[in-house]
Amino acid sequence: MKLLTFVDAGETRLGAMLDDDRVLDLTQAWKRVEHPLSGRPAPTEVIDAIFMGDEVLISLQLLLEQAGQADALIYAAQDLCILAPIPNPSKNIFCVGRNYRAHIVEGNLARGRAADEFPKALEFFSKPPTTVVGHQALVSRHAAHTKMLDYEVELGIVIGKEGRDISPEDALDYVFGYTVINDITARDLQALHGQWFKGKSLDGTCPIGPVVTLKTAIADPNALDLELEVNGELRQSANTSDMLFDVSHIIAQLSAGMTLEPGDIIATGTPSGVGFAMQPPRSLEPGDVIKARIAAIGELVTTIE
Amino acid sequence: MKLLTFVDAGETRLGAMLDDDRVLDLTQAWKRVEHPLSGRPAPTEVIDAIFMGDEVLISLQLLLEQAGQADALIYAAQDLCILAPIPNPSKNIFCVGRNYRAHIVEGNLARGRAADEFPKALEFFSKPPTTVVGHQALVSRHAAHTKMLDYEVELGIVIGKEGRDISPEDALDYVFGYTVINDITARDLQALHGQWFKGKSLDGTCPIGPVVTLKTAIADPNALDLELEVNGELRQSANTSDMLFDVSHIIAQLSAGMTLEPGDIIATGTPSGVGFAMQPPRSLEPGDVIKARIAAIGELVTTIE
Repeated sequence: MKLLTFVDAGETRLGAMLDDDRVLDLTQAWKRVEHPLSGRPAPTEVIDAIFMGDEVLISLQLLLEQAGQADALIYAAQDLCILAPIPNPSKNIFCVGRNYRAHIVEGNLARGRAADEFPKALEFFSKPPTTVVGHQALVSRHAAHTKMLDYEVELGIVIGKEGRDISPEDALDYVFGYTVINDITARDLQALHGQWFKGKSLDGTCPIGPVVTLKTAIADPNALDLELEVNGELRQSANTSDMLFDVSHIIAQLSAGMTLEPGDIIATGTPSGVGFAMQPPRSLEPGDVIKARIAAIGELVTTIE
Repeated sequence: MKLLTFVDAGETRLGAMLDDDRVLDLTQAWKRVEHPLSGRPAPTEVIDAIFMGDEVLISLQLLLEQAGQADALIYAAQDLCILAPIPNPSKNIFCVGRNYRAHIVEGNLARGRAADEFPKALEFFSKPPTTVVGHQALVSRHAAHTKMLDYEVELGIVIGKEGRDISPEDALDYVFGYTVINDITARDLQALHGQWFKGKSLDGTCPIGPVVTLKTAIADPNALDLELEVNGELRQSANTSDMLFDVSHIIAQLSAGMTLEPGDIIATGTPSGVGFAMQPPRSLEPGDVIKARIAAIGELVTTIE
């Protein structure tokens, strides 16, 4: 199942992306179909479904199976205003730095370091909630602040339940699902300010979505093709199997001494092919259309204003 | 005026710290005294007062002036459970790295660098909301994760209104008030994980408070004495005038391309005297009592479990 948050008549709705790029309005279907949680308030965003716990998934699956009988509640995805799955996260997005072997090598070479200088532990940083936007968002070029705006396609983990000191063996139990994140980055600010936060924090520079695919629908999150193209030109093409630290180890290291909470989002790092490592380096510019795709999840489109 | 958030009978209350270390319950006083906003719901936390805008301060000042007539609503501070002023911030705490000249020098020497290697721009990072605790909190030693837990007294800025691309000249207009922050840091994790986030993110490692002093009660935030002692031994003693980038320039750099929102909290960096720069380096240990003080604000006490 693929869940999303969209807006209709000024209110948020929980939707399910169907196989034919149409969306079932689960918030409306909730009241019209009998299911185990009938009578409880309908979820109106992905975060509501997360907080309702595992039992809500049985109800949502039932609504989905009866979708054919409720054509009035199904819309073409392209006609909807799709938000980020969690449009107002309650804390910053957790992010992982250099985590794909080929990207680490390209970054080392671009900065004049030894190619095989791999990090010994995960490099965590964050992006504030003011960076979060959804599918089809227009994102500022931020030309007044940066000369080098870059893209980064990343697998996003959405946490489903609270935990701390989670072992790698148990880590996937804490996952609700997976999404696509474009960790847009101002490279010059990232370097100028020492720590990466400033270059990662400009408004609108964290497109997320369009959907969260439930973990049960993904056989192995560490074996997913991911790609990013700019104006139709393929720039990044890799597989999450190239990650230095996989999904379980990311959750384990991040939760060591630090409580993860339902709805937390973790961006797991980007593969090679970023603009600043090209010869010559290439920045995103106004009008650029960025498509970030991950197998079994979907395609996240962002346009630079 | 000094505002704080405390708990009574399981509910949060907005309080005002009086000169004699007693606290007026403003939430209760709100309904008992006539004031311009009588009839509106009473603020029950500092964040409520921030969102109610400047006009609430006139009401709160009126309640404060009539405090002498409402002895039943005044408690000894030591008898109260005082929370962080904003116990559940809606995003990570913004933090500034090396920003005091003497601290930069001690850090450079401890790491074997040239003493006068000063940053060219502010080094921003963040601490998640799960780190936030209040005055008199017990904080885990986190011995399973770190061998070197350190303290950092810092002036905290609380933002009062939304803004982006704020100029240094206008910056203080966006401030609601100032507080005390102890940016507790796991030094070994800070180094191991490259980016500082991991070493700054352990549960409970961001004591804040006990109060937010309104900006109108502080003549110059860039001329405040700040001190920190461990078990009565003075470790940090400086003045905010030693900051490389002052309060206005911190707000200007942080808000460049990034929207600041009401209730945002910014820790502005720590002066010299931290444990890891001592000879030999000294970690915080169970039972240690840390007192962090800033003139015109107050004293924030934390005990290591």
